Amino acid sequence: MSDTQLLICGKSFKQDERDRLSTAYPAVFVDGPGDMAGLDSTLRASIRAVAYKGHAPFGAEQMDLFPQLGVITNYGVGYDAIDVEAASARSIAVTNTPDVLSDDVADLAVGLMIAQARTMIRGHAHVASQRWAKEGEIPLNRKVSGSSVGIVGLGRIGREIADRLAAFKCEIHYSSRSEKETPGWTYHPDVVSLAQAVDFLVIALVGGAETKGHVTREAIQALGPRGVVINISRGTTVDEGALLDALEAGEIAGAGLDVYENEPNIDPRFLKLDNVVLQPHQGSGSVETRTAMAELQLANVAAFLKGEPLVTPVN
Amino acid sequence: MSDTQLLICGKSFKQDERDRLSTAYPAVFVDGPGDMAGLDSTLRASIRAVAYKGHAPFGAEQMDLFPQLGVITNYGVGYDAIDVEAASARSIAVTNTPDVLSDDVADLAVGLMIAQARTMIRGHAHVASQRWAKEGEIPLNRKVSGSSVGIVGLGRIGREIADRLAAFKCEIHYSSRSEKETPGWTYHPDVVSLAQAVDFLVIALVGGAETKGHVTREAIQALGPRGVVINISRGTTVDEGALLDALEAGEIAGAGLDVYENEPNIDPRFLKLDNVVLQPHQGSGSVETRTAMAELQLANVAAFLKGEPLVTPVN
Repeated sequence: MSDTQLLICGKSFKQDERDRLSTAYPAVFVDGPGDMAGLDSTLRASIRAVAYKGHAPFGAEQMDLFPQLGVITNYGVGYDAIDVEAASARSIAVTNTPDVLSDDVADLAVGLMIAQARTMIRGHAHVASQRWAKEGEIPLNRKVSGSSVGIVGLGRIGREIADRLAAFKCEIHYSSRSEKETPGWTYHPDVVSLAQAVDFLVIALVGGAETKGHVTREAIQALGPRGVVINISRGTTVDEGALLDALEAGEIAGAGLDVYENEPNIDPRFLKLDNVVLQPHQGSGSVETRTAMAELQLANVAAFLKGEPLVTPVN
Repeated sequence: MSDTQLLICGKSFKQDERDRLSTAYPAVFVDGPGDMAGLDSTLRASIRAVAYKGHAPFGAEQMDLFPQLGVITNYGVGYDAIDVEAASARSIAVTNTPDVLSDDVADLAVGLMIAQARTMIRGHAHVASQRWAKEGEIPLNRKVSGSSVGIVGLGRIGREIADRLAAFKCEIHYSSRSEKETPGWTYHPDVVSLAQAVDFLVIALVGGAETKGHVTREAIQALGPRGVVINISRGTTVDEGALLDALEAGEIAGAGLDVYENEPNIDPRFLKLDNVVLQPHQGSGSVETRTAMAELQLANVAAFLKGEPLVTPVN
């Protein structure tokens, strides 16, 4: 085991993803950062790269277990579980897997919007349960095309969402730290002003401490009774208690969510609502995209171990 | 009742739609064409316009009950329930409600595609039943963006669907009676060649005798094991038995359907499938669109009774 160079960390890795990594490099596997301290110290001393997948915190304490660690390659675009500041202070590079998943996440955002507005979950159940034949039509619902949409965070994914919704003739608004070059979309410096201007608020922020609670109670209430919150970013970006309060009280019309504060044990208040479409954090969950993510993670490991420039560095 | 001019026919009319019509003109109401013969002959003689909603056949026999009938205004773009040839032979005009519903139907087509490929019905049930916490993630699924799509029938609705899917970077193919001007989409003269070229086959034909069974067993089989059928047109446009056979046998990957041969008593074979997303013929079912359709139907009634040109004539 002395030539082991790679630590694969994350019980959410699929078998084929683990195999891809461990076929390429001598590797050991742990379920999560909490199991790192349990590894033999000689083994730990041989680790030069970590391939990480998951949402459990990976901080300074874990990094210090590996004296030769030079890179943490994250599977996913969001690397908020990794303490990048601590990594930089130790000259440990961090990489992620941007771009390859933007399409999938944007697709699911649009899917959530249509499914919520057009009550597709109810529609499917109505047919599948044969209530259509017994009880007649479902209630009329809500038009998507031509609606006003606010994208919170116009990064790679936000832009992909906006591009798609422009083809639905939606009126595109966005908020971000600074105004961006766009095909005439309306910039709002803050999320409350954005929420006041639109019916659908689509959150496409990065995660992490900086964006925690960015979509505030005030912003949610500013959406008003026709407002719908779509979140495909991180559960942390929204004041989830305020969102639940507004959904329960009918202060907004609904939500389409792929992410939650406490995954997968989400707040049971969500399960009692009939104005939400809920997905199990599967934004990037197509075979094609997960394969591309795994390949990009491996490409970063390989680049580091060969002394070549990292493909998608973060720090 | 002698000044009654309008017959409102169709039990699927909502109360507010009936009220809109009967507030505008003296009107009588029947549930369907089968009840027309039961109306008093003096009353029948006073009817000059019919506002129709439904899928029950409205043929020569019913038309002949109304000696002064001059227009049948259909609620909906698809007027396959009305025998237009018989109407024309009697100098009865027929109108429908095109354009105002194209956006909604196209939105639902895209929603069906995303929901089917990204297993959103399963995803929602996984979260709502708390299986996410107990059993972990759902299986990986299928990327939508960048896929190859074949639009069967590039009319108003087909074009709206293609425009949206172009923003998902899909490769657009289509079949129609003749090649059309497009932004570089690939024309196929027949549906089998179209199906061979694509993964998603989206049916956007008009209904009626001419398109009955247009998507044949051969076309469905030409799609192959990654093929998905999306139908938002009419159940009659597909060989439904062949579609069910292919879905049951896994000869194609799945389907997203808003329409069926026998609505609302759909073939129970559909209910046993786990690779389908089923909607209760709600393509145009938003409040906004149904209001626009009702207003357009009334505008056609009004134009006829005032002796003005019809807004959206069919024959």
